[in-house]
Amino acid sequence: MQYNRIYNFNAGPAVLPLSVLEEVKESFMNFSGSGMSITEISHRSKNFEVVINDAVSRTKRLLKLDGSYHVLFLQGGASLQFAMVPMNCLPDGKTADYVDTGTWAVKAIKEAKILGKNPKIVVSSKDKNYSYIPGNIKLSADAAYVHITSNNTIEGTQWCNFPDAKGIPLVADMSSDIMSRPFDSKPFGLIYAGAQKNIGPAGVCMVIIREDMLKLVPENLPSMLKYTTFSSSNSLYNTPPCFSIYIIQLVLKWLEEIIGGLDKMEAINKEKAELLYSAIDSGGFYRGTAEPGSRSLMNVTFRLPTEDLENIFVQEASKNSLGGLKGHRSVGGCRASIYNATTLEGVKALTDFMKYFEQKNG
Amino acid sequence: MQYNRIYNFNAGPAVLPLSVLEEVKESFMNFSGSGMSITEISHRSKNFEVVINDAVSRTKRLLKLDGSYHVLFLQGGASLQFAMVPMNCLPDGKTADYVDTGTWAVKAIKEAKILGKNPKIVVSSKDKNYSYIPGNIKLSADAAYVHITSNNTIEGTQWCNFPDAKGIPLVADMSSDIMSRPFDSKPFGLIYAGAQKNIGPAGVCMVIIREDMLKLVPENLPSMLKYTTFSSSNSLYNTPPCFSIYIIQLVLKWLEEIIGGLDKMEAINKEKAELLYSAIDSGGFYRGTAEPGSRSLMNVTFRLPTEDLENIFVQEASKNSLGGLKGHRSVGGCRASIYNATTLEGVKALTDFMKYFEQKNG
Repeated sequence: MQYNRIYNFNAGPAVLPLSVLEEVKESFMNFSGSGMSITEISHRSKNFEVVINDAVSRTKRLLKLDGSYHVLFLQGGASLQFAMVPMNCLPDGKTADYVDTGTWAVKAIKEAKILGKNPKIVVSSKDKNYSYIPGNIKLSADAAYVHITSNNTIEGTQWCNFPDAKGIPLVADMSSDIMSRPFDSKPFGLIYAGAQKNIGPAGVCMVIIREDMLKLVPENLPSMLKYTTFSSSNSLYNTPPCFSIYIIQLVLKWLEEIIGGLDKMEAINKEKAELLYSAIDSGGFYRGTAEPGSRSLMNVTFRLPTEDLENIFVQEASKNSLGGLKGHRSVGGCRASIYNATTLEGVKALTDFMKYFEQKNG
Repeated sequence: MQYNRIYNFNAGPAVLPLSVLEEVKESFMNFSGSGMSITEISHRSKNFEVVINDAVSRTKRLLKLDGSYHVLFLQGGASLQFAMVPMNCLPDGKTADYVDTGTWAVKAIKEAKILGKNPKIVVSSKDKNYSYIPGNIKLSADAAYVHITSNNTIEGTQWCNFPDAKGIPLVADMSSDIMSRPFDSKPFGLIYAGAQKNIGPAGVCMVIIREDMLKLVPENLPSMLKYTTFSSSNSLYNTPPCFSIYIIQLVLKWLEEIIGGLDKMEAINKEKAELLYSAIDSGGFYRGTAEPGSRSLMNVTFRLPTEDLENIFVQEASKNSLGGLKGHRSVGGCRASIYNATTLEGVKALTDFMKYFEQKNG
């Protein structure tokens, strides 16, 4: 492959569009005629203003957000959001509903509890190793919000249709599938996403928050832990992670101008996922771990007949320029993360290898 | 200049060593034979382990830290540290001494107060617009720590000799002068520094913390706001800002291998600062704003006879490839930030321009 690159199936940080990387490289010593690298320009300069404003505008257009939403760029990843969400939006004395669909949902619940807040686990798919997305959820009528994890990176499941929260604001950790498909944003009061899977490199977390949620933010929080600090300063209260925001801007530009928007992106993602799940389902050698109706289009988790074969599979794949196929250490097995920037060509190379490996070892 | 670059005197994000930028660019499409960009590799990969471990080792060597110190990489900048320091290291019922030497010290004090903690301002140089570093400070015998700002980016002052805290741990915001000179680390319990001035790009904050300070960390803090979360995981509890840490590693390598360590770096920094202060002091046209004994070697702040002349100076300098000379909006005037990566050649170009401008307008 070009530049001797591999097909990268890592779960995050993950593959980025080749044209984005090339643009970063080409402009690296002198960004936009500034005479400085993007890593050296002031966050208060006109050049950077263009970058961050464009990233915000493209996010609003791609997700069809109405005027009541703010797009913010924070640091600390989704893990800090697990604490910031209840700190900012769960008033004392109120409860919030949490849907437990896996490792990251559990962490979100844990952080709310550390704060002395009252997260209520309304349903969990732990009974079957988080292999499915629960249906028919009974939500509390008085919850401040309903928290879900839209895609479960480790367990390989994804919400196909979001739950009807009946007017209670949905809060979603969309770290691993934001911008992978269109969805109706209206039920969402807050969306957060660590960038390093679908929209950029590590080091920045996108937060989309609605006006009514901002009104819940208490006055007496540390400045850097208040959403209002960021909403009132266009994320420029202090020095933001400029380089990571710049790459987000380029990825969103690629999504709009090269891919053609989220409908197109979803069609491509479906094509990639169908190809891969077909390869898994085609014989008895590979076995998908997620229930068919809950399968993720982003993280495809599967097992081989034995752990030994799984190890050999990952090693041999790596020798064939197919990287990052080991499952998360907490669940084992294999996982192919096929985010937006994964090409159909890459998935074909993987399914070809899977067929070859099955013939050799099956 | 090469790549049509300018001389960049921005206060932060700021200039980086040219050879570091070139190395980033050259390896950008395929980092260290991984077949992936540094922005795409897993933070749990061997390739990234090498990067972060090397950054930690070089920090320890450059600052001559003994085995009781941990070097951590966090997000949120120094601004989040203003809250994390008292959250982690100021037990309820105890007080901490704060030395007020300018804008950033004021913000640190403000965040401690928001938390309901008890920061005691033991001395302030506000009486003279923060133009000096106070001496003869009377510290509390029972303080949990003494907080100082080693270099005041906005006001252009710097501690020449750190105060004797008589065994009470010093805590220092060294954002704008870390790694610019050698110093005795032993009195310091905690040092923090946003990277974007002297050691890297925006998006990562270096925290150096001693074992005894870690013992103060309460159990019931959110995971991402506890120093122990980072010290027990080598800063890899969740996905760290990989790219920013990578640049820090390269900058520290440049400091050790090209510059030759902090003694050498300090000598160069002194030469640059002396050249610039001489140009300011040589006639009556320019006027330094900091008192001579408190002048910063990093941020050289000065005024011209009128504000109009200051504006023309900044504009004309910019046309002559000398960028970022406008003073901070809160204080006005001019400022040349001459961090480690600023070359002597750059400072000479600035002083030549200053002489020319003085002759024309003086």
